[in-house]
Amino acid sequence: MTEMIYLDNAATTKLESCALDAMLPYLTELYGNASAVYEIARKSKKAVFDSRRQCARLIGAAPNEIFFTSGGSESDNWALIGAYEAYRRKKGTCGHIVTTSIEHHAVLRTAEYLESQGVSVTYLKPDSEGFISVSQVGKAIRPDTFLISVMTANNEIGTIEPVTEIADAVRSVRKDILIHTDAVQAYGQIHLENIAGKVDLLSASAHKLGGPKGTGLLYIRDGIKFPPYIRGGMQESGRRSGTENIPGIVGFGAAAEAALNELDDKILLETGLRDFFFGKIREIPDVLINGPGPDDSDLARLPGNISVCIKGIEGESALIMMDREGICASSGSACASGAREPSHVLKAIGRADDEAKGSLRFTLSHHNSREEIETAAVKLSEIVLKLRDRR
Amino acid sequence: MTEMIYLDNAATTKLESCALDAMLPYLTELYGNASAVYEIARKSKKAVFDSRRQCARLIGAAPNEIFFTSGGSESDNWALIGAYEAYRRKKGTCGHIVTTSIEHHAVLRTAEYLESQGVSVTYLKPDSEGFISVSQVGKAIRPDTFLISVMTANNEIGTIEPVTEIADAVRSVRKDILIHTDAVQAYGQIHLENIAGKVDLLSASAHKLGGPKGTGLLYIRDGIKFPPYIRGGMQESGRRSGTENIPGIVGFGAAAEAALNELDDKILLETGLRDFFFGKIREIPDVLINGPGPDDSDLARLPGNISVCIKGIEGESALIMMDREGICASSGSACASGAREPSHVLKAIGRADDEAKGSLRFTLSHHNSREEIETAAVKLSEIVLKLRDRR
Repeated sequence: MTEMIYLDNAATTKLESCALDAMLPYLTELYGNASAVYEIARKSKKAVFDSRRQCARLIGAAPNEIFFTSGGSESDNWALIGAYEAYRRKKGTCGHIVTTSIEHHAVLRTAEYLESQGVSVTYLKPDSEGFISVSQVGKAIRPDTFLISVMTANNEIGTIEPVTEIADAVRSVRKDILIHTDAVQAYGQIHLENIAGKVDLLSASAHKLGGPKGTGLLYIRDGIKFPPYIRGGMQESGRRSGTENIPGIVGFGAAAEAALNELDDKILLETGLRDFFFGKIREIPDVLINGPGPDDSDLARLPGNISVCIKGIEGESALIMMDREGICASSGSACASGAREPSHVLKAIGRADDEAKGSLRFTLSHHNSREEIETAAVKLSEIVLKLRDRR
Repeated sequence: MTEMIYLDNAATTKLESCALDAMLPYLTELYGNASAVYEIARKSKKAVFDSRRQCARLIGAAPNEIFFTSGGSESDNWALIGAYEAYRRKKGTCGHIVTTSIEHHAVLRTAEYLESQGVSVTYLKPDSEGFISVSQVGKAIRPDTFLISVMTANNEIGTIEPVTEIADAVRSVRKDILIHTDAVQAYGQIHLENIAGKVDLLSASAHKLGGPKGTGLLYIRDGIKFPPYIRGGMQESGRRSGTENIPGIVGFGAAAEAALNELDDKILLETGLRDFFFGKIREIPDVLINGPGPDDSDLARLPGNISVCIKGIEGESALIMMDREGICASSGSACASGAREPSHVLKAIGRADDEAKGSLRFTLSHHNSREEIETAAVKLSEIVLKLRDRR
């Protein structure tokens, strides 16, 4: 069998061995429910606290501002619906949200749901590289705006949005608007140590940075009244009920700590591999780069993200042929891959339906090697040639 | 160090080794996102399908009626809020729910939330053993009732409710009412192979039957229009978004299959240990048994549940002293153990506040031995004597 080359780290990552090692005691002997009084339960409780501290550090938050959830999607749903419920309880009206047309579906579908409840939603359109500008957000604010939700970095095309600048600008004119950012693709991938406090709410997921699937978090800035989304017992200070997923939370903490410790090295390595890969892909004729070009600032694009539209091929066919060569990649986001519609993100940056069909996304991790990228680039060229020849 | 005697299996269970073994490949090499097209992703997808089949069998459901969640609390929230949203969309009014005053807080707090949205809720009171009767439910139904939610078995006092009889009676007069049951404490503990189809919605949790924390399910009867609670990607047929927690789901499936295969033996063993323990506890003066007495029918009480109120002691103090002897137990439910209020369940069956303070719950598993129960009974007698002497 061919050795696998995994280039779909934005879909999910391999669990880091430090995370698995941290989890194993809690998957075997230390199985106590963190709410109970006896010894193994106290150990679970302490483990959750330690993870909360580890996860908080990546965004410069305090541990008591971190609330563990089942993943990024739950965090996004909670952020939007919680903000809406808090506003409606206070004002008695439905209000207005500003978000973007390139958010993850966990935000977009929730925004659409809130529209069905009577909320007005403005979907800001990005420029051709996927950027949302500070002035766009400013212009969209209305007297009844209660929430701004702009993602930290886009999951398909890797564009890093000016979220802290947006937050600063909004704060300077309005203190009563909550600012949420879906940081699922950015958390543990780029420096975010200054983001807590600038934003009020931030979603992150464990399995995108080498932690386990089924665990995420919502950062809620201290002092904000915010209702729970999953009600019941008093776990997570009464804000998120359900027996804590101790192994998941512990794995998340360990992976987060490792990601922060290695962040500069990771960024350097991935950026190098990414730009090398872009260079190789550019040798293929008729390829469009989605998102900021590799010549843009280093802070413009996620270190590990390569997104292209290759004219004259179907991305889906290319993926299947790459799978036969042991190469794992994606066309657009994993979540929407069941749907055959062209990506909403690629449409938003101006790709024609025909171009969007030829989209491919490669997302790297620090476990990838230069040899793997060289092999992937060669195989990709061959596959594109074959597919174009068939036409 | 003293060997631990774990008697808090209703709070959480030790992960079965078959579940851990099933999970490990998905925590290491088989980390693919189930939504992608390449080989390790296809393996993840198949693993989720197999678990769905395994989990469905315990309640006689079809695999496509099982939707994986992050646990019992999410399932309960989803069941109630989904039923409400479906009703309101159809009728434009808020309607009425029938539930009980002894439900888990995941149901009760969600019912209270729905009351704040305008829904009317009837909370049925149980009899002195914790039973809700079929006729009580029948009498509570109103023309605008859209949901009945009665738990399969109570988490504190072990009473098994006549849920299928309630469902049959409701169906005979009204086909438009959804019937939900919180089966978190019963799933994998008693025979439920005939419950699917009788009820429309059923919540279950993995970590209560030897599966991992952070995974649960909601059974939704085929043909019911039911909105999602966590929106986003198209996972779980579009009904529950978020990257699937493959290791969790696989562990749930393995634990569920093992539980069903060993169910008769487990019930026999646990019932024997339970009644032996009850016999020993009865030798302590001034002890009230909560829930159906051990002389009632075998189908009246969960096989592994022992709940008592011991007069003249504080349950909390007894727990701490038992912890020193290596015995893990609970006073009331784990979820509410942070709160110092007397249990809502014990109050509902008529215990005075003073009696409820002396409550203790021991919940057994098939891993417990007769020697453990003997030791626990002896230690409990000694501790009760000591605590009473202090007064």
